[in-house]
Amino acid sequence: MVNPKPAFTDAEYASRIEKTRTAMDAAGIDVLIVSDPSNIAWLTGYDGWSFYVHQAVILGPSGDPLWWGRAMDRAGAIRTVWMGDEQLLGYDDSYVQNPAKHPMEDLSRHLHDLGWAYRSVGVEMDNYYFSAAAYNALLMQCPKANWRDATGLVNWQRAVKSDREITYMRRAAAIVTAMHARIVEVAEPGLAKNVLVAEIQRSGTLGADGHWGDYPAVVPMAPSGMDATAPHLTWDDSPLVAGVPTFFEIAGVYRRYHAPQSRTLVLAHAPDAYLHAADAIQAATNAALTAARPGQTCGDVARAFNAALAKHGHHKDSRCGYAIGLSYPPDWGERTMSLRGSDTTVLQPGMTFHLMPGLWLDDGGIEITEPILITDTGAACLAQTPSGLTVKH
Amino acid sequence: MVNPKPAFTDAEYASRIEKTRTAMDAAGIDVLIVSDPSNIAWLTGYDGWSFYVHQAVILGPSGDPLWWGRAMDRAGAIRTVWMGDEQLLGYDDSYVQNPAKHPMEDLSRHLHDLGWAYRSVGVEMDNYYFSAAAYNALLMQCPKANWRDATGLVNWQRAVKSDREITYMRRAAAIVTAMHARIVEVAEPGLAKNVLVAEIQRSGTLGADGHWGDYPAVVPMAPSGMDATAPHLTWDDSPLVAGVPTFFEIAGVYRRYHAPQSRTLVLAHAPDAYLHAADAIQAATNAALTAARPGQTCGDVARAFNAALAKHGHHKDSRCGYAIGLSYPPDWGERTMSLRGSDTTVLQPGMTFHLMPGLWLDDGGIEITEPILITDTGAACLAQTPSGLTVKH
Repeated sequence: MVNPKPAFTDAEYASRIEKTRTAMDAAGIDVLIVSDPSNIAWLTGYDGWSFYVHQAVILGPSGDPLWWGRAMDRAGAIRTVWMGDEQLLGYDDSYVQNPAKHPMEDLSRHLHDLGWAYRSVGVEMDNYYFSAAAYNALLMQCPKANWRDATGLVNWQRAVKSDREITYMRRAAAIVTAMHARIVEVAEPGLAKNVLVAEIQRSGTLGADGHWGDYPAVVPMAPSGMDATAPHLTWDDSPLVAGVPTFFEIAGVYRRYHAPQSRTLVLAHAPDAYLHAADAIQAATNAALTAARPGQTCGDVARAFNAALAKHGHHKDSRCGYAIGLSYPPDWGERTMSLRGSDTTVLQPGMTFHLMPGLWLDDGGIEITEPILITDTGAACLAQTPSGLTVKH
Repeated sequence: MVNPKPAFTDAEYASRIEKTRTAMDAAGIDVLIVSDPSNIAWLTGYDGWSFYVHQAVILGPSGDPLWWGRAMDRAGAIRTVWMGDEQLLGYDDSYVQNPAKHPMEDLSRHLHDLGWAYRSVGVEMDNYYFSAAAYNALLMQCPKANWRDATGLVNWQRAVKSDREITYMRRAAAIVTAMHARIVEVAEPGLAKNVLVAEIQRSGTLGADGHWGDYPAVVPMAPSGMDATAPHLTWDDSPLVAGVPTFFEIAGVYRRYHAPQSRTLVLAHAPDAYLHAADAIQAATNAALTAARPGQTCGDVARAFNAALAKHGHHKDSRCGYAIGLSYPPDWGERTMSLRGSDTTVLQPGMTFHLMPGLWLDDGGIEITEPILITDTGAACLAQTPSGLTVKH
């Protein structure tokens, strides 16, 4: 069976609900409408590829959360969430992708029925799965509610991982380690990129150490040469070429928990510029890992990273990392903390990040990255992939 | 190189822009802000997994469209769009997932600079990638614009496919045919679901007939038994069991064009209820294919389908199909026409649909579906997968 309940203990779900309600109180929110599939899963265990239609979890001032979604997906909720079936609300299929009416009209009726349409209601204003039209429909149907922006409210409760979550992330990291090993095993000049990607995906889904692989929130990025001057191109059937670097930005996934990791591969011989860039990244990574310990801030880590990079004559405009954990497409980040100078979040044991040093050069790109865990005393790399530029002779 | 320009001819892109401007005129829209990655790709050729940050194409009253996105993704635009580099606008990385400021503030500045902040501006209100916060930021920065809902405006221009698009969809259909053949080849009692899914993904990415496979907008659904009472569960490592049906809802993809197709597999022996349900689906599919011809409506097809299903004692609440084509996660549908009774859209040659007869039974689910093309005289199945329930002895 998919995701036998509970994926986590009842106590862990209860503590998640409690943390979230504490944050709601602090924000003056009585009722929270959660649209982010990652937050829905974290609060309730719900797991299904149904986020392409409007759905939500509604957390009121007391009682268990309500799952709300398309009627046919209620069956998936029955099979994956920890709450009783009476907490699961399905809307009629005629609301699906129908310009004449919006599913949020149905949700609004529930808010009225529950007596919550006049309360302070939080919505995730800047989430992929909470559209402008969804918000307008709620405003129209519940004009007396006090609508509040709750973007990131649940995401922030997820920042410090439980022991079981860390176990899942270690399993994911073992999977990404196996995926990178597979790349080195099969890559050779002339191999078509899509054939290599097929092997990467296969390795990811097979899993590692007896743990099956789940789907990543982002498909493999595998650009070579000039295509690698762009960070987010995927693949085609062009052949690998000796001496032309390719970076692989991929993630191992265990039960929706992600361990993203990138490596850059060059066949036969490595251009000097890439060897130097790899040295710069290694130095900056070491500096970041040394700085990353409880009590320091995200900004401290970014400054240590950037200073070491500058010493090697490189400069990076973009953030050098972000929080990771449970995720659904289109992003494996938690969208809370970023490793950038302006982020003053204080690191705590149990936080997990993708330390993401990518450099875009004139003739290509290089990414050598690490999923890391903040421990009681410092930072630990979760994956076992060898560091540095990967050169296969 | 990823997606050598042009993926389509200049003439085809020009005709897409012209069709879109005609629709804008009819809707009283001077400037269109396009957030849907499928619409962005269709108008400009842009192809990259960057839709997890805010990005758009801006189509003004005249001239080439503007691509607007994160500065680092401008490099990907340079490599994939047909417009000149001067049409590509990048915003600073400090806007990325930063609660203190919103990327739409940057887009608003461009609207002001272009003299478009006082015009009638269309936005895709009910798209995944146009959040409530994005809309609010635009309203705040351009309060004098006349904001119009343009949800689906571009999607509708995509309904009738060009010859080249149909060629791409045929290639995608050949890929999904190969994927289903691979399932039958490797499935056996005791095989873990994730191992089977790894083979499905591998087959899809390898492609078929010399054409490489692109990533699907939805990962494989592969639920068995009671899990298959729910339509959108993905996979785990549970073993295939003789006599317990599993449905596989998957798509072959060629250059972002999708041919989705489902089959239901049972090993060793098929339960009678599933054989009967497969007969009902076959009859309903035949009725729908007969009804699906130019001049008939989507509703006519749904009524023909439902009448045949009813004759076999089955009933389906949900729509029995939807438009397909170019797509990005999280949905491979075009989100325009649905094969449901209330849809009065008239069929035209070149339209493509996923005819999607899924039945949810008490102890499982059955899906046997077809990607179809409306021809000059009727409807044609694009894939070659054998029809009916798949029984492997």
